[in-house]
Amino acid sequence: MTTMEHPPTMKARITTPGDRDVRIERIFNAPRERVWQAMTDPELVAQWWGRGNRLVIEKLELKRGGHWRFVEHSDHGVHGFEGRFAEVTPPERVVQTFEWDGMPGHTALETMTLEDLGDGRTRLVTTSLFLTAEDRDGMLQSGMEGGLNESYAALDRVLAAMA
Amino acid sequence: MTTMEHPPTMKARITTPGDRDVRIERIFNAPRERVWQAMTDPELVAQWWGRGNRLVIEKLELKRGGHWRFVEHSDHGVHGFEGRFAEVTPPERVVQTFEWDGMPGHTALETMTLEDLGDGRTRLVTTSLFLTAEDRDGMLQSGMEGGLNESYAALDRVLAAMA
Repeated sequence: MTTMEHPPTMKARITTPGDRDVRIERIFNAPRERVWQAMTDPELVAQWWGRGNRLVIEKLELKRGGHWRFVEHSDHGVHGFEGRFAEVTPPERVVQTFEWDGMPGHTALETMTLEDLGDGRTRLVTTSLFLTAEDRDGMLQSGMEGGLNESYAALDRVLAAMA
Repeated sequence: MTTMEHPPTMKARITTPGDRDVRIERIFNAPRERVWQAMTDPELVAQWWGRGNRLVIEKLELKRGGHWRFVEHSDHGVHGFEGRFAEVTPPERVVQTFEWDGMPGHTALETMTLEDLGDGRTRLVTTSLFLTAEDRDGMLQSGMEGGLNESYAALDRVLAAMA
């Protein structure tokens, strides 16, 4: 156990366990309940998911079978994202589909888990399963890593402000 | 080329080219434009998709990125199905996602093609790609084959009535 703060430039660890999946791991300096809240309360999600861009949360029906839909408004255009919840188990697990309007039908299934590390920190692990290896590779090459790290840095700030 | 009518008990040919997919092939005694119409006009779809059960077509936004949602009302309960269109190319090709409310997140990607056989008949081929082999096997074991043949027999009758 360390009492050091993680550096502000902390990156998510992105790996590819198989040819159709992506695994993302990131530790947050906040207890699990707080991370869960920041990831599920629409007003808080709107503060970090869009990395500074305006985010309209059209739907966030946080239950099995419920739908979600976020629309990000940036200088470069309007991008919609949506999916459906397969499992919602507070404060530790969400399974949902994910689809970008720009590539309808290229659905991925995301499993997000929050692990309480017991020292006021929380490990986030998200695994995404794509229908094809091409879909997975397309996601990796889309600049997703930079966007993800920006989102998580914004989430760090939201979590600090909640403390 | 044959001029024989197919027998009224004609079955779809269901095969499994890989461990995550299902291929369905069925010939209809109707020209392609008519089959396309019966598969895309909500009033006609409602007459066969539910195999005699009442079918409420909540959404049928037949374009890339559009959504569809059908709810079947039977003596055994209410079942919702939904998805999103990835491609709509009349009168020959539709690509869409498919999901049953009872198993949210277990999304399949369906590619449906209609081939004009030139003699007043049309070959329908649908390939479904599932996220996992378990999802595919679950679909095969769900009684899907019987339901499919009932739907297509009802579609035969709709096509005959349209002639």
